[in-house]
Amino acid sequence: MDHVVIECVSPELDAGRHPVKRIVGDTVWVGADIFKEGHDVLAAQAIYRGPGDTDWSFAPLTYDFDSDRWYGAFTVDRIGRWRFTVEAWTDRFVTWRSELKKKLDAGQQIHTELAEGAELIRAASRSARSPAARASLTMTAKILADRRGDMSIERRIERALDDDLLGLMREHYRADDLTRLPRELVITVDRERARFASWYEMFPRSQTAPTPDAPPHPGTFADASARLPRLAELGFDVVYLPPIHPIGRTFRKGKNNSLRPEEDDVGSPWAIGNEHGGHTAIEPSLGTFESFDAFVATARDLRMEVALDYALQCSPDHPWVTEHPDWFFIRPDGSIKYAENPPKKYQDIYPLNFWCDDRQALWDACRDIFLFWIGHGVKIFRVDNPHTKPLVFWEWVIGEVQRDHPDVIFFAEAFTRPKRMNALAKLGFTMSYTYFTWKNSPTELRDYLSELTQTPMVEYYRGNLFANTPDILHEYLVNGGRPAFRVRLLLAATLSPLYGIYSGYELCENVPARPSSEEYLDSEKYQLRPRNYEAEGNINGDIERLNAIRRAQTALQRYANLTFHSSENPTILFYRKSANEPPVQWVGSRRQDIPEAIVESLESSEPRLPTVPSTAASTGEILVAVNTDPRHVQETMVHVPIHEMEIDDDEPYTVHDLLTGARYTWRGVRNYVRLDPADQPGHVLLVERV
Amino acid sequence: MDHVVIECVSPELDAGRHPVKRIVGDTVWVGADIFKEGHDVLAAQAIYRGPGDTDWSFAPLTYDFDSDRWYGAFTVDRIGRWRFTVEAWTDRFVTWRSELKKKLDAGQQIHTELAEGAELIRAASRSARSPAARASLTMTAKILADRRGDMSIERRIERALDDDLLGLMREHYRADDLTRLPRELVITVDRERARFASWYEMFPRSQTAPTPDAPPHPGTFADASARLPRLAELGFDVVYLPPIHPIGRTFRKGKNNSLRPEEDDVGSPWAIGNEHGGHTAIEPSLGTFESFDAFVATARDLRMEVALDYALQCSPDHPWVTEHPDWFFIRPDGSIKYAENPPKKYQDIYPLNFWCDDRQALWDACRDIFLFWIGHGVKIFRVDNPHTKPLVFWEWVIGEVQRDHPDVIFFAEAFTRPKRMNALAKLGFTMSYTYFTWKNSPTELRDYLSELTQTPMVEYYRGNLFANTPDILHEYLVNGGRPAFRVRLLLAATLSPLYGIYSGYELCENVPARPSSEEYLDSEKYQLRPRNYEAEGNINGDIERLNAIRRAQTALQRYANLTFHSSENPTILFYRKSANEPPVQWVGSRRQDIPEAIVESLESSEPRLPTVPSTAASTGEILVAVNTDPRHVQETMVHVPIHEMEIDDDEPYTVHDLLTGARYTWRGVRNYVRLDPADQPGHVLLVERV
Repeated sequence: MDHVVIECVSPELDAGRHPVKRIVGDTVWVGADIFKEGHDVLAAQAIYRGPGDTDWSFAPLTYDFDSDRWYGAFTVDRIGRWRFTVEAWTDRFVTWRSELKKKLDAGQQIHTELAEGAELIRAASRSARSPAARASLTMTAKILADRRGDMSIERRIERALDDDLLGLMREHYRADDLTRLPRELVITVDRERARFASWYEMFPRSQTAPTPDAPPHPGTFADASARLPRLAELGFDVVYLPPIHPIGRTFRKGKNNSLRPEEDDVGSPWAIGNEHGGHTAIEPSLGTFESFDAFVATARDLRMEVALDYALQCSPDHPWVTEHPDWFFIRPDGSIKYAENPPKKYQDIYPLNFWCDDRQALWDACRDIFLFWIGHGVKIFRVDNPHTKPLVFWEWVIGEVQRDHPDVIFFAEAFTRPKRMNALAKLGFTMSYTYFTWKNSPTELRDYLSELTQTPMVEYYRGNLFANTPDILHEYLVNGGRPAFRVRLLLAATLSPLYGIYSGYELCENVPARPSSEEYLDSEKYQLRPRNYEAEGNINGDIERLNAIRRAQTALQRYANLTFHSSENPTILFYRKSANEPPVQWVGSRRQDIPEAIVESLESSEPRLPTVPSTAASTGEILVAVNTDPRHVQETMVHVPIHEMEIDDDEPYTVHDLLTGARYTWRGVRNYVRLDPADQPGHVLLVERV
Repeated sequence: MDHVVIECVSPELDAGRHPVKRIVGDTVWVGADIFKEGHDVLAAQAIYRGPGDTDWSFAPLTYDFDSDRWYGAFTVDRIGRWRFTVEAWTDRFVTWRSELKKKLDAGQQIHTELAEGAELIRAASRSARSPAARASLTMTAKILADRRGDMSIERRIERALDDDLLGLMREHYRADDLTRLPRELVITVDRERARFASWYEMFPRSQTAPTPDAPPHPGTFADASARLPRLAELGFDVVYLPPIHPIGRTFRKGKNNSLRPEEDDVGSPWAIGNEHGGHTAIEPSLGTFESFDAFVATARDLRMEVALDYALQCSPDHPWVTEHPDWFFIRPDGSIKYAENPPKKYQDIYPLNFWCDDRQALWDACRDIFLFWIGHGVKIFRVDNPHTKPLVFWEWVIGEVQRDHPDVIFFAEAFTRPKRMNALAKLGFTMSYTYFTWKNSPTELRDYLSELTQTPMVEYYRGNLFANTPDILHEYLVNGGRPAFRVRLLLAATLSPLYGIYSGYELCENVPARPSSEEYLDSEKYQLRPRNYEAEGNINGDIERLNAIRRAQTALQRYANLTFHSSENPTILFYRKSANEPPVQWVGSRRQDIPEAIVESLESSEPRLPTVPSTAASTGEILVAVNTDPRHVQETMVHVPIHEMEIDDDEPYTVHDLLTGARYTWRGVRNYVRLDPADQPGHVLLVERV
């Protein structure tokens, strides 16, 4: 039976059903409501265990009166699954000591009190292992209990209230009512790249130079490798390839999603599998495993990573169709069911039956696909349409893979209703696509990014803001042209530490398949698209500058440090990326700021809280102003949160535009901003003190 | 493994750790987020079980697109502990049927689809018990599967889409992926008096007529019985008696809490136990068990109930001190530890050691006190200072008592920090004291009552608003005199369906023991206080009228139907008690209103939702305006929530002051109110349509 009540522990997601997410090196703030009956003094600690640890480590919790809550912190210094829970107990010695003091102050008799203290001290001496401690405690107990009056009452009191005694008692007194929260809470600790990365998506088969007078020929991994140095120069961290596997022939889609392909149509890479193999094979025209491995190695040498697509579906020509027809849905006429969303048919795709009788073998095979590519140096997977496969499958397979490979990153490409997208993130996906492409007005952006970064979603959902994808060309880009591309790039790269573009974005490609379609005309999904990536009008300059700024400024590498601030012209969006993520806890859906005194006392105490790993990056405050109107010059007064940055009302300060190098002297809250989309759609301002 | 995700179920408290509370006859609204991968149609139901039921009952859940959530309802028609949980599954037949329709609309071939439907129907026929249903299903399956073409395709399609078939399939098709929430959630269903009651506290020993020329003599149960008819006339439901047990002699407190009592001092009833017995004995001067039983019977005949005090502490003369000294804290010198909060000493009280070695016997004895008085017809206990005894003890003892006596009501007298008060309510206390006595400004009242009634606290915390207690005479009453007493009575009686006064209140007794003390001078805790309850200046008229209005208006018998509305003069508090409690769910700390369409469809469907038990009471809308300034006339424009009451902007309506009988014609939102504290401190307005 629990002597002490421990509740509302944080971080905790859905009462411990799901882990929360952190990045290696993070401080984990623990909070709990802890109480029992009466007036006794309590003590509490978080106990925690990193991956592979057999013993618990301890972090003391401190009580804050105003919030009536206990707080503590520890650092997660390795990736993998961590566990923690909370313990509390009555601090009998401190209770006794404080009551003794009160009685002394009131001039009351304290003989029996000293005898009671002696009992506590004697109990502690019995559990002390060090002979010195035991001896000291035993002697102190004798002095306090002294009935013959050998020692003056003053000396005995002095001994009772001695600070060293307090320390010894803290160390050796064994609580008689230790209560532990009956569940252990899990924290998934990922590597830094799970929080901070610039993504670039490209089809390797398109990475050839354009041949204006001849039909294009398919690009290879070698061609794709040749582009990597430039991508590294532009500052990308992750190069993501759509499926690289053999492409099905049956019902192959032609150009522009035509159902009547021509002889030489290359097909959609998402129709996986033909006679050359399935998910663990490479499309022969792309090259060999050797050339793929070389591609991965080149990326690694350039300090980039390769992400592969993971699309659990098969073309009718996939080897599994003949080897394991029972892994698919068999219709009464013996045929295998193709994908459809009536009345639409996708006859080039067979969905898998995740609940077939041979379920375990199928699931194992799905897991083995991950393990296979991990064996080829791939540690990041962009998972195609995970919301069309069982949620419990993802929880299982991610757990299986991360057990041995905690550095593997899973990126959920689910565009569905919020609860399902959130569920995938809770069940284990490291990061997720978002609705960002469809949020183009300042109000939508502000609401949506606030939801992503200023609600309990921060505990599990890391939004990777793609500005476009092969499936999503938003009309904002269609109508807004180059200035719109620059605006959206700036927003994506500064609103979240995770963002990406799909190739063609740098060239401001924006011709839709049909009016008001989000599909591209001549979509690369169905045909080769060689490009001159340095063609006139490209925005590589913006990309390179923004990625460099992101690497230089830690504020742009954090996720939950985003706040929006007033702009008197609502067309201009104004926000701050603060130097540090605010210490916040989420208790259910309630936000609980960690009291400042608690943060300070923990930061000033011992090396218990290691500082963030030192980097070359600057740790300043960043302010961003973006003109979301790609057609007109806009001007406004923005309201700078100077007090949050500890700037006085009458203190001038410099804001340094990291995009242009210009410096402006600002003063007070209201300051002037003018943005011409044709010239400069926004400012990324580092706040410098004069 | 769960095929379907079921989460965010409501009502649920702390992930099922604690029960939510309801009143018999209540509609329990169940909500859940339910989803799985892909596009299949889901079905879901709540399953529930009343006390003693061995089988589950079922309530279907309906999907609401806007909130992306499922809802249903059932009625709790007996008191006791109910359990429920949620099940969901894929509705394969409806999925198939809707896809079939889409394909037909698109003019696609559907032969194989019909064969698939036949398989589903055949599966259902195998689980149908009724021969008629089985025959119908078997025949339909044959017709759909018909390969020889005996029947036209049109007839087969007609049969496939037949509504009767849909009904049969709903009844007989056994889901292959039924998923049940892995925990059962508990609902404590109490009787009506747990939500609606007017309480009166009195010391039976004071219920004699004043004897101005002679010292008072102790009143008896017979004297107390004599007062019951008048209390019934005033409209009280519960008569609560401080402890009626023998009072200790050792360190007995004298008048005004004096440590030097006089010979004839009667002592505090909370110092329980002497040579005549302890918690299961009666103070001899009060009478015998026969006279106590008669008192209880008289109350019952007057449709009132008796509530007893339950104070787990002993005087040094309590029989347990000699019989079970080990149930107390023994000090090193062998003495028993008295209560203290250093430097204060309470030597007339020994606290119990709830964690003594003989714990189970002590706890059983504590439980048996309840059972003993239940045996004497007492079903309501006001528990003294529960926050000084282990929380886990209360959870245990309330569970033990309510297992056989679910009609027993526990009322927590804890004045401590909010989290502990909430914890006691969560652990089982039926109702709780509140901070109401200390909330006297309109802002404080509005904030606090909104917290009590418009947050997840409504799921477990029922605030009983006492306007005074023997321990709490607030300075608002001291300074404000009779008008202040009328204001606070009006507030207590209309803000919550549970309220109470301690005797003397009707006489506006307000002389504190010392300036700024909340203790009464000549406190009845330590001496006899015979009174003339009809003395000049009494506010019995107010009491009688308010209690009658409360009985006549169901709006004043509900708890969560309180909303505050604007008053342009902030001194006047203006609020509405709506005719019905709004259908609301709490998902963690997030409020989720049940969509109107869902409420309407459930209310219009079958007798699944029985109407509220019919009473003679009216079910109108109530508006209350109270002048919180006891000294000055105040006037204001109040803002009437006419749209919430479906009154048009230009539609006149009548408000009928139930206190005075006056009727006013109002129109629109803004209306005039003038309140003179010397005359009428407030309006209780029934909204009548013209």
